[in-house]
Amino acid sequence: MPASFFYARMRFVVVAVLLLVSLQAGDDAAEAADEANEKPPKVVSVMATGYTAGVESTGKRPGHPQYGITKSGVKVRRSKVSTIAADPKVFPLGTVLFIPGYGYGCVADTGSRIKGKKIDLYFPSTRQVFQEWGKKTVRVQVVRWGKGKVTEAMLDSMNEVVAAQQDFSTKIFDS
Amino acid sequence: MPASFFYARMRFVVVAVLLLVSLQAGDDAAEAADEANEKPPKVVSVMATGYTAGVESTGKRPGHPQYGITKSGVKVRRSKVSTIAADPKVFPLGTVLFIPGYGYGCVADTGSRIKGKKIDLYFPSTRQVFQEWGKKTVRVQVVRWGKGKVTEAMLDSMNEVVAAQQDFSTKIFDS
Repeated sequence: MPASFFYARMRFVVVAVLLLVSLQAGDDAAEAADEANEKPPKVVSVMATGYTAGVESTGKRPGHPQYGITKSGVKVRRSKVSTIAADPKVFPLGTVLFIPGYGYGCVADTGSRIKGKKIDLYFPSTRQVFQEWGKKTVRVQVVRWGKGKVTEAMLDSMNEVVAAQQDFSTKIFDS
Repeated sequence: MPASFFYARMRFVVVAVLLLVSLQAGDDAAEAADEANEKPPKVVSVMATGYTAGVESTGKRPGHPQYGITKSGVKVRRSKVSTIAADPKVFPLGTVLFIPGYGYGCVADTGSRIKGKKIDLYFPSTRQVFQEWGKKTVRVQVVRWGKGKVTEAMLDSMNEVVAAQQDFSTKIFDS
């Protein structure tokens, strides 16, 4: 191989790798640059969950004097700009965020679990949290095809197999 | 540029592009090949949501004779192999799936909304669905920074602004 060709090819590889790395790093770099300049970042990665005014999220049941009332005093709402919960040290009350897949949210609430870069998105019902936020496309692996029935004994066997970290065997389940 | 170098470089570019394309297409190709051979596919993309035995998911309250009982007759369980719901035309009862982020699930239940390539993952509580399944990392955009308070009037203004598809203006909210 001529040396000139070797170096030309190496240069191409280096440029291609740098391009790929810069494409991947672009978003993070923009965020880091914002922070380095001590300007408030415009885009922030957060962990987002859904919540309702109900007892499973807030500990309050309908009839409680504070039911549906956020930390800021306003009522929860799901509208063009909904109420959301955040850590006020990260996003002070009154901060408006645009959340992909949810819409605009105004920080009006706080929560004992909502610390740091976490936000809680208000939905009027549990079903809406399940259907509108807790929806994910996943690639599932078919471990075995069923034959149309399940019994407690089959489930017990499967659990024993997995607990023992054995391979799935058709014989065990079809007894 | 010598012609031989040009063709050598072109060949390298073509190989690199083909490699990238094949890496991206690999998973889908495997799935398509499975279907073309009419063998049951081993990996399937599905839309997965969470559910509980509770009234918001099943319409049944504790005390109902069928509370916590799946279509197959077995009780719901969250264990090494949990009970899940699917469309029996896609995944017959008894099918075992491995679901990333959840674990093994045995199809034991069905649901009126669970048709086609959809599955419903059983969790013992609403809170667990919210915290363990309905958790997403999202990149949120800070539309405006708050000053520590929110009022109903501020929320109303924000909603009017967004409804009218105007730009966010600091003046409107800080009145």
